[in-house]
This record gives sequence, C-alpha cells and structure tokens, in this order.
Amino acid sequence: MSGSIYGKHFSIATWGESHGKGIGVVVDGCPAGLELCEEDIQKFLDRRKPGQSKFTTQRNEADAVKILSGTFEGKTTGTPISMVVFNETQRSSDYSEIANYYRPGHADLTYDMKYGFRDYRGGGRSSGRETIGRVAAGAIAIKILSSLGVDIFAYSKSIGPVNCDPEKFSREEIMNNKLYMPDAEAAAKASDYLAQCMAERNSSGGIIECIVKNMPAGVGEPAFEKLSANLAKAICSIGAVKGFEIGDGFDVATATGLTNNDNYEIKDGKVCKLTNHSGGILGGISDGSDIILRAAMKPTPSIASTQHTFNKQGENIDINIKGRHDPIIVPRAVVVVESMTALCLVDMLFESMTSKMEDIVKFFR
Amino acid sequence: MSGSIYGKHFSIATWGESHGKGIGVVVDGCPAGLELCEEDIQKFLDRRKPGQSKFTTQRNEADAVKILSGTFEGKTTGTPISMVVFNETQRSSDYSEIANYYRPGHADLTYDMKYGFRDYRGGGRSSGRETIGRVAAGAIAIKILSSLGVDIFAYSKSIGPVNCDPEKFSREEIMNNKLYMPDAEAAAKASDYLAQCMAERNSSGGIIECIVKNMPAGVGEPAFEKLSANLAKAICSIGAVKGFEIGDGFDVATATGLTNNDNYEIKDGKVCKLTNHSGGILGGISDGSDIILRAAMKPTPSIASTQHTFNKQGENIDINIKGRHDPIIVPRAVVVVESMTALCLVDMLFESMTSKMEDIVKFFR
Amino acid sequence: MSGSIYGKHFSIATWGESHGKGIGVVVDGCPAGLELCEEDIQKFLDRRKPGQSKFTTQRNEADAVKILSGTFEGKTTGTPISMVVFNETQRSSDYSEIANYYRPGHADLTYDMKYGFRDYRGGGRSSGRETIGRVAAGAIAIKILSSLGVDIFAYSKSIGPVNCDPEKFSREEIMNNKLYMPDAEAAAKASDYLAQCMAERNSSGGIIECIVKNMPAGVGEPAFEKLSANLAKAICSIGAVKGFEIGDGFDVATATGLTNNDNYEIKDGKVCKLTNHSGGILGGISDGSDIILRAAMKPTPSIASTQHTFNKQGENIDINIKGRHDPIIVPRAVVVVESMTALCLVDMLFESMTSKMEDIVKFFR
Amino acid sequence: MSGSIYGKHFSIATWGESHGKGIGVVVDGCPAGLELCEEDIQKFLDRRKPGQSKFTTQRNEADAVKILSGTFEGKTTGTPISMVVFNETQRSSDYSEIANYYRPGHADLTYDMKYGFRDYRGGGRSSGRETIGRVAAGAIAIKILSSLGVDIFAYSKSIGPVNCDPEKFSREEIMNNKLYMPDAEAAAKASDYLAQCMAERNSSGGIIECIVKNMPAGVGEPAFEKLSANLAKAICSIGAVKGFEIGDGFDVATATGLTNNDNYEIKDGKVCKLTNHSGGILGGISDGSDIILRAAMKPTPSIASTQHTFNKQGENIDINIKGRHDPIIVPRAVVVVESMTALCLVDMLFESMTSKMEDIVKFFR
Repeated sequence: MSGSIYGKHFSIATWGESHGKGIGVVVDGCPAGLELCEEDIQKFLDRRKPGQSKFTTQRNEADAVKILSGTFEGKTTGTPISMVVFNETQRSSDYSEIANYYRPGHADLTYDMKYGFRDYRGGGRSSGRETIGRVAAGAIAIKILSSLGVDIFAYSKSIGPVNCDPEKFSREEIMNNKLYMPDAEAAAKASDYLAQCMAERNSSGGIIECIVKNMPAGVGEPAFEKLSANLAKAICSIGAVKGFEIGDGFDVATATGLTNNDNYEIKDGKVCKLTNHSGGILGGISDGSDIILRAAMKPTPSIASTQHTFNKQGENIDINIKGRHDPIIVPRAVVVVESMTALCLVDMLFESMTSKMEDIVKFFR
Repeated sequence: MSGSIYGKHFSIATWGESHGKGIGVVVDGCPAGLELCEEDIQKFLDRRKPGQSKFTTQRNEADAVKILSGTFEGKTTGTPISMVVFNETQRSSDYSEIANYYRPGHADLTYDMKYGFRDYRGGGRSSGRETIGRVAAGAIAIKILSSLGVDIFAYSKSIGPVNCDPEKFSREEIMNNKLYMPDAEAAAKASDYLAQCMAERNSSGGIIECIVKNMPAGVGEPAFEKLSANLAKAICSIGAVKGFEIGDGFDVATATGLTNNDNYEIKDGKVCKLTNHSGGILGGISDGSDIILRAAMKPTPSIASTQHTFNKQGENIDINIKGRHDPIIVPRAVVVVESMTALCLVDMLFESMTSKMEDIVKFFR
Repeated sequence: MSGSIYGKHFSIATWGESHGKGIGVVVDGCPAGLELCEEDIQKFLDRRKPGQSKFTTQRNEADAVKILSGTFEGKTTGTPISMVVFNETQRSSDYSEIANYYRPGHADLTYDMKYGFRDYRGGGRSSGRETIGRVAAGAIAIKILSSLGVDIFAYSKSIGPVNCDPEKFSREEIMNNKLYMPDAEAAAKASDYLAQCMAERNSSGGIIECIVKNMPAGVGEPAFEKLSANLAKAICSIGAVKGFEIGDGFDVATATGLTNNDNYEIKDGKVCKLTNHSGGILGGISDGSDIILRAAMKPTPSIASTQHTFNKQGENIDINIKGRHDPIIVPRAVVVVESMTALCLVDMLFESMTSKMEDIVKFFR
Repeated sequence: MSGSIYGKHFSIATWGESHGKGIGVVVDGCPAGLELCEEDIQKFLDRRKPGQSKFTTQRNEADAVKILSGTFEGKTTGTPISMVVFNETQRSSDYSEIANYYRPGHADLTYDMKYGFRDYRGGGRSSGRETIGRVAAGAIAIKILSSLGVDIFAYSKSIGPVNCDPEKFSREEIMNNKLYMPDAEAAAKASDYLAQCMAERNSSGGIIECIVKNMPAGVGEPAFEKLSANLAKAICSIGAVKGFEIGDGFDVATATGLTNNDNYEIKDGKVCKLTNHSGGILGGISDGSDIILRAAMKPTPSIASTQHTFNKQGENIDINIKGRHDPIIVPRAVVVVESMTALCLVDMLFESMTSKMEDIVKFFR
C-alpha cells in the first residue's frame, strides 16, 4: 500500500496532490559533496510547468522549488534532501463538478474502487502535478550522471501521426520549439495537428524517446534487475505511458537473427558494435553504447467533447469536461521521462559498484 | 549486485546456470495451507522444456522438479519452498568454443565487462534455462490466483510476419499446436516461416500476449508502484524482451482522446466499460476488466549463419555458431510470460490488502 | 547510502537538521479512511518537545506540525502524508564553536569520516530533533493500532541508579511527573539525582520500558523478520540506545529452562501462559500476551565538564561544552520508543495479513 | 509473509526444515572473483554441528555442504550461489509425540496461531538447524571481510553464572575448549555447571560476545539504518536471543556522561579513543575502533523435567520431553552470531560505498 517511494540506493519519496498545500519529494541516498542549489532544480521544473505554449495549461504558476534540508554551504551533506513546491493558485471551484462523476480515461473510478473515496480536486494525487517530485529529484540524478560524464536527453519523437525525420535530427532544435521535437519541420506540422485537435475538442498521443550517451558498461544485474527491466518500470510508472521499448523495441518481432544481432569489430584496439539494435543493453547489462528507449503516451483524457459515463448516484450521464486542458501530454512529459531514466540509471550505477571483488578491495584499501 | 530476487511479498530467489549442477528457486512468502505437489509445478515446466517440436532444442531433458522444503502433508506451511531441477545431460563439449569469443546478440561481452569473466558453458546464468526457476515459482503463483478466481493465460500473438487473426481466436487451440498460437491457420503459416528461417540458418522474433480475467479491482499503487509499471518490469526482466505494451500500447501514440478513452455505462446495476483500450488498468490501478499485455521478443541470437565478432585475443573473426538452437524463443517463452505476470499479480494483490482501514479492522477483528 | 526510510508496508521517510529550515516526514502506506488531524500528531510531539521541565532544554519552541498532503475532508486518502515542523528559533551562534572540534560521545567525528564534512549546527542530522519525524509518523501508527484495539505505552523504568518499584507501578502516574516514571517516589528520587548530575556538570543514562497490550497473535515472520528482531532494529535505531531486551532480556543468561519456560494452562477454554518471561514473542511470532521491551539509553554526551579531544587542526585540546543541555535523554525519548515500537508493529501486522491462504481467499471474496 | 531473506546488497534466502529433505541458502549479491570452495564453507558448519562434545546433540550428522551454483573454475561468478546440506539421518519417530502438544518455550503454539498448522518434526523451520543456511552464507561474508582486512570472532562470554575473566582472555583458547570460551578456567567451571544442569534435567542460558577488528570507519547510515540497529536486528533474528548490547550496553543506564564518553587524543598523528565504551559505533556509524556486541541467549527450552502445557484436544497435561537435547544453546550458536555479524557488516560496507561523490567519481573514472 505504499507506492510513492522509488529507488534502492538513490531513494526518493514523493508526496502531494494537485490542489493540496504543495508537492514535494525527499531524496534519501544522495552522496555527500555534490554542489547543489535551488536553481539546479528549478531549470528542470521549468521545462514541465504549464503556460509555456498555447498547447499547455495557461495556469500562471511559478512552481518555485525550495530545498528544506540536506545541503550545507552549497553542497549536499549525505542526509535527506527535502524539496517542496507550494501550490499557490488553487482554483478548486474549477473542479467541483468532477467530484460527482467518473471521467473516462482518468483514475477517478479506480481510486474510488481502491480507497473508498478520493481527493477529487484537480485529480488529487493522480494529477500530472505529481511529476514535480520526480523532476526535482531527477534534476539531482542528472547532475550526478553529469559528474560521471553520462549525458542524457529526451525529446518528442512523434505527436499523433507526425514523426520526426531521423535525417533532420538536431539536438539543438529540441529546446527551440515548444513541443521539444528535434526536427523543426515536424514540430511545425505537429503544431498544426494539435491546433486541429483542440478545434475538434479532442486530444493526441505521441512518443517520447530518450538517449543516454557515455554510459559505463557493466551496469544492470542479471535476472530480475536487468537495466532494461528497471528502465521499463521507471518509465511505465509515469501516468499515461502505455508502452515501452528499448533499442529496436517492437520491431524485433519481425526481425531475424541476422538483421537484429549487433556484430562486433575491433577498431583501433577498441570494441565497436557495427549496429545498435539492442539499444545499449545485452542480457540486461549495459555494453557502453548509447542506451535508447521510447515511451508511448496516451492522449490527454480530459477532452471537451461529449463522453458517456456515470455518476455517484449510479446514473448514466453524458459529460463535457470544462476548463482548459493540454491537448497533448507529451511535450511536458519529456523532462519527466528524462528524470525517471536518470533516477533509474543512478540507482543501477550505484548497484553495480559491488560487482567485482577487486573493485571492492581497491575501494576499501 | 543482487538481481535474482523478485517480489516484495511473494518473494522468489532463483539460481543456477545452464551447465552447472542444477537450476532452482526459493519461494519465500507463499501463504500456508495451499495444496501443492510436484506435479502442480511439473506441468508448467513441461511447457517450457526443450524437445517439444521441431522448432525447439532436441535435448532429451526430463527437467524434473523436486520440492525440498516448505510443504507438509501436501500443503504449504508458510515457510520457504525450495525447488530444484538438477541438470542431467550436460554436454559441455558442445560449448567449449564459445569460451574464446563473444557471440553477437548474447550477453557474453557484457558479463565479461561486468564480472571480469564468465561461466561460458551454455551461456551460464544468461541461458534460457534460468527461466526454470521463474516458471516453477510462477506455477505456485498461478495456483494462488486460481484460488482467488483469477484466470491467466498467454499465447504467441505473432511469429515473424505471421499474426494471429483476432476473428479466429480460440483459447483451446493454444495448447493444440506446438507454437502456442490461438489461431490454427496462423500456426500453420508460422510453422512454414520458421522452417524457412532454419533453412536459411536464421531465426525469428515474435510477440507474446497475456490476458488476465476476473482480476479484482483496486490492485496497484499510485506513483511508482503502478500495476502497469510492475508488470513492465516483470516482463522486461525476461531475456530477449525488447518491448512491452499494456492495453492498446504503442497504438495510443496515434490515437485521440475520443478514440482512446473507455466510456462507462451502468448496465443492470453494474459498471461496464464500453471498450478496454486501457487494458484493465487506469492510474496504475486495476479496474476489474481484463488485463491485456504484450511482450516483443527478439530473434534467437544463436544462428548458424556467418557473423562478425572478436575473440579474447582481440582479433576480428567470422564465426558460425554450432549446435542446434531454436529458431525462435517465443513458444517456449509463453509460459514464462504467464509466470512473470502471475508472480507480479500475486505480489500486487497482497500489497493491495492494506489499502483501506475498514478492511484492516475487519481482518484483525 | 540511504538510511532515513523505515518500514516495508507503512513506510516513512524522515528528513531535516537541527538548525535547517525544518524537520519532517513523509508517510507512504497509511491506509485510506483513518480520521486524522494535526492535533492527533501534535499531542505526541508535545511529549518530546523541550522546555517541559527543569531537566529539558529551555528552548521556547512551538514545534507545531503541519500536514501538507494525504488527507481530505478529515481522513487519510491512502496517498503519502507529508508532515513538517518548521524550525523557528535557530540560534546558530550557540553552536559555532563546535564546527572546529569533535565532541566526545557525539557523531561529529563519524559524520566527518563518512561524508568528509558535516552540518555542525546543533548536531545537524544527528540531533535529537531528528526524532520529530519519527514521533509524527508514530502518532499515526499508534492511531492505527488503537483502531485495532492494540494498546501501547512506554515509560522511564530507571534513571541512573534509581529504579521504579514494580509494586508501586501506576500507569496514570506516568503522565503525572515530568520524568514519565510510573512510580511517583522513584520520580522524586530521580529528580534529586538529576539535580545532582547538573550541579556536577554531568549527565545520566537510564532505561525505557515499553508495553503492548492486546497484541494479535501470529504477528512476526520466521527467520530474519522475527517480531523481536524488527523491534530490536526499530529501538536501536534511536540515537543513544546501546542495549535492547525483550521479555526477561539479559536475565535469561543466568536462568534455566525450568525458570525461563512459560508453561501453558487452559482456563475457561482459553490458553493462558502462567508466566511471560518471553515478553509475548516465541520463535519471533507474537503469542497474544503482552509484549515487553526495554532500551538502555546512554547519558547525554553534551556535558559542561572538561573533556579531552582534538580539533580540525589536529591539536589535542580540552573543551567545556557551552549552552544548556538536558542532563538526561530518557524522559523525552519515552515517546520516541513508543513511536518506533508502534511503527514496527503496524508494519509487522500488515506483513502478517498474508500468512494463511484461507484469510486471503476470504479477503478477496 | 516472507521472512527468510536477509540483506539489501549481499542478500541471502535460507530454506529448509529440521526433518525435511535438506537445509540450504541462496546467496545473491556475492561479488565476482572471490575464491570459494566447499571446504571454505564446511569448516564453519563444523563449528555448529552436533556431536562435538557431551553437551551437544549426539546425532551423527555429516552436515556436508554442496555448492550448486555461482562458482566457476574455483571463483565466484557474481551470480547466485546456492548451497545445500541434505538431511541424512532423519529419525522422525523421535518427534512424533510433539505433534499433539505445545512445548513451553518453543514456537509450536505461535506457528499454529500464525499458520493454522505446522511441520512438527524436529521443530520444522523453527529448529536450530535453520541456522545452517546462515552459517554457510556467513562463511562467504567472513571470507569477503577477510579480503578487506576485517577480523571477526565470537565466543561464549558467560554460561549460566560462570563468567569469563577478562584478565584471562586468550583468543587461542576459544577453539581449544568445546564451549568456545576464551578462558580455560571458566570453561572448566562452566562444564561442571552444565553437567549439573543435565543431571537436574534442566538447561542453562548464557552470553555470546563478538568482536570486530580493523573495521573501516564511516560504515552505517544515519537514522534508521544505523550500523548498531542493523546489528541488533541481525543478532536478534537468531532464535533464543532475548537481549542485545553494543559497547557498554545496559551498563550505560547507570553511567554518567563523564564515565561513558570516549575522549579523543591525537597520538603520532593518528586519532585515538582513550576508551571504547561506545563499542566502535557513534551516531550509528563505525569510527574504526573495535566493534563489540553481545547477545543474551535463553536456556534450551527442551528439558526432561516435568512441564505443564495443553494438547490439541484442549486438555491440560504434564509432559516430559524425550530425546537428547543440548543443555545449552550458546556454544553451537557462537558461529551463528559470528555469521550474522559478518552478513550485516558486508551489507553495510557495500551500502557505505556511495557516501561520497568523490569516491563515486573516482570509481567510474
């Protein structure tokens, strides 16, 4: 009955509801001596906050993070880091209607089934605002990865029917458009598609891709704690994710051994893989090449079109959800995918430190 | 550095290598009073054992399981259940060559990167035989689910380019053909395709689907311990799985809110979902409808065709892997997907027992 | 590297330093539907706060708790409960001197050895104020136990050489004197002893006892998760605890089987133990009789007498610790022992719910 | 409901009943590259096996361990190490009577309360034979500690009223007498005392002490995962342990700050503690000095004297337990205390490897 704690070594405990007093996270397991200030966290939170474009909620929220513990003189002390974003502009009146019925595609019904009742204001704990804690903690994980030379970035790979063209991939472009797509042309087309969705009181799904460069080899454990398995859980724990792929993903189903195996070659004394169908992981263990993963995200369930459901009185009703809702979850979730990937990688990196006796003996010498 | 333990409540610890003394599992957390004998386990193991068809390894292994502890007078006692399958027909000579080079698509290289050396005989711990422990434990989990009225089954949904036709779905057919497909026609076509793969010294991937009926509602925890997230980890921990879907999976990326949301209707006083795009899970919590998941499995990496790699001396070499290998992993992995799904569900069912105070008060009254 | 999370089912994550922004706790795993308000928590915090008597620090701190999440309309929702006590009267100047040297009996040196540096203000994370998070969470655990009919209370059993007389035990008396002793005469003598300690710039140790009545039988797991083992960890995780006993404790070392075994007798159709040397636990499992445990707490390490140590410059120095310090930890720690016992019991009670198949089948019917 | 798994990093899962097919353990998390053979394990098991002296059970059991997985060419591979001791001389007939009644001081009643029934043969899972798995795994932990220069040993400190004289402490003597006492004179007296206990159909308790030398500083986590707290759990998880002390233990209750604080002094540029009342741990973190802990063990509950209890028919009865039973648990438990201490230390050593960013950066460079 406790599902808000993540990570074995770098553990985080998130808390908070959409319209409660605030949203926060406690990070337990951050090593001592990492330089850390609120701005390090804020810049990641700003990528997920509403009001960035016409396709994101126009709530004027600062979402300013405060660090309440775990740092001293600008550095982490090794003790728990508590971070909080206080909710400032709660407009509960917007949501009063949903107290009484069950929105299709939302967790309203399952929360009631599980707990007997729910905090219905803005979706309560099942709101997208829950990800604030993930991103705040993820910012620290990314900073740790960066100290180890690991480079991680995510982007919108497709929005509805609009796919990025791999030929036009530009990492710089990702931060240039509000949809976080690495292909400016695709971003323009996707923008048109989303405008159409909104006009039709509808919403769109999409795919997020995350790439990790300079990953150390040997990370990930055999059997149940494969790196791929832990990444799958980390990513599928994000609301709205319905599918996960590593490397070639579902394309392997129609591939053959000849097309799917990555052959090796020694070049200049170094091991090279001639292809990377495996997405950087073999047998659940990183091989040092790029880790590539994807998440399929469902369309925003809150749409203005008429939907059929029932209310607490057990009556069949038609509803039209009011208020302004993003027509797509993907762009704001890009930083969440990046964060969850980083949280998983830091945890697995730490786990891998005890793989070999000789490393341990050297460590304690 | 410990990855062979799975489950928080119904915990299993698997062990064993392909060519060691045996393969086994310890189940810690099985409730007392479940009737259990070796035959209950054996019938599941028989579904994954080699030699069932021309597409599976022709090793003549009994893979007979022994229960070493945890039962008394035909029932589980609540203490750990240790099960073992001793390896009988080890032909290490078949594998001596692979000690010296790194097979593409296998974990040979990553094990060496992680541990400094490896038990190369038959792939050691990274062999498919590792799943024996999962299936033996899964058989108990399935028996528990069955006691609770939960019905679980998996099958081969596609093999290479051959898909089952949903119109021709027959649950009975699954056990009728050696490919565990629910569509006899598709099974025949797939059989031809696999024969062709073998003739070409090649192998094929495919997709396994698992369906869970009569799942209690309210199972799965918010945030990180969503039922979908835990299923993703359970399934992606199986070797060769490169993709995971729940409900509509990657199709949600091109869906819209209108097509993807499952509307509700009260019929005869009961809540019905008019569709089940969500695959039985909303907000990470089961809603009582069918859970539907899929796993994409890569082609068998061991193929007889020429591949490029390097050896321990750092030389680039061409290899042709000898010995007989299944041209596809999918059919024998069907029972493994079923087992991992069951292990995850039992664990999450137990977790959900403390969701509500009134249930707890009633329990201890 | 993460030590601030406790509990498998009823999990808590505490955070905060003595002189940081605040101290708090996130409770993940509290069942939904428990009535809970800030006053429920505050009354427990008030028992550990300073300024209660001449033997406790005279800091004028409100230590007022705020609940930031996890409740709705006066009841817990099943989602994480975040609680915080903001630090209001930080007088960092009092502590500036200790930045430079290592106080005997404190964690100054070990924190520096482990982390390379430390937040020295008021002891940072190793301060007694860290227990605020434990007590706030413990208050919820005690409320849950109370709903199940379980009654738990602790008290000061001895202070220095002054022992409570079992003949004069009065439960009501515990809350009547500032030392939380169940024997008014002993409390008076202990008060004199402590006054003498203070006059001598010295401090005293003591023993806390905790009793649990109406504990359900069958709680606790065989082998490593014995109820006694988990209680031992819970209690020994409190700073200053150097010893733990269950039932007769160290007296068993000089006992014999005849004097130590608790014989049974059926009276009026009910099983009775004629004695309770075992303290309510056999084989690590509760038997339904009173659980009795004790903690030995060391004297307050901060004393005004001269002590020998060294400073950051590596010089041997004599120090006299300034400021006002409690001459004994025991009275304020009574509620901490009670809290940790309750946190452990709730966790183990929840764990025990899956012991028997018939209970589980009944639960999900 | 799962209590037979111990350890977060170096995890072990034990299994087996006194009169089942065998007793075993799976070690998941042993680093690769440790030289390991069965003899390394056997020499520790031999210290706990019956038949060593007139005070231990005269069953002629070899208790020969087999390693079934996890090693290759004489070294650990990093994958799970499965070890088993098959039960050879089961004489179930000796125990048939106890099926029907509840032995005082045993777990018979609590197992029935928890599980509804029990494997009564030789105490089933609650038998002392359960410790075989702990000792086999502990032998590996001790070998790892030894590779890191950590030296660990335990001994019988007191048996009934007979205490070892610290002045006569001889480490060599420990292995010279069958009672594992470091003082030959005390051993002789204890031997007389035990002979008297047997003559009186009675049994005796005692105290085991364990000392750890050359422990690295900085091991143990703040708050709940203190090294002392984890040692307390490890030791109190051993059947028959009713009390635990670290350093001065219960003596701190009557000590004062002046007598209990360990003052520091710099000698020859090194930090020295002038005393070690704290037992090598401050604030839950090791300080590099000797770790000293003690366990109080109750008298063997199986005694031949008449005891009062009830049977399954609910009748009050007098019983005299038949068969030959050790008059004391302590000597054979010495190696168990040593094993549990080692298992805890290895786990906490591994945990401590991520305390500092600079160590981590250096590790992955």
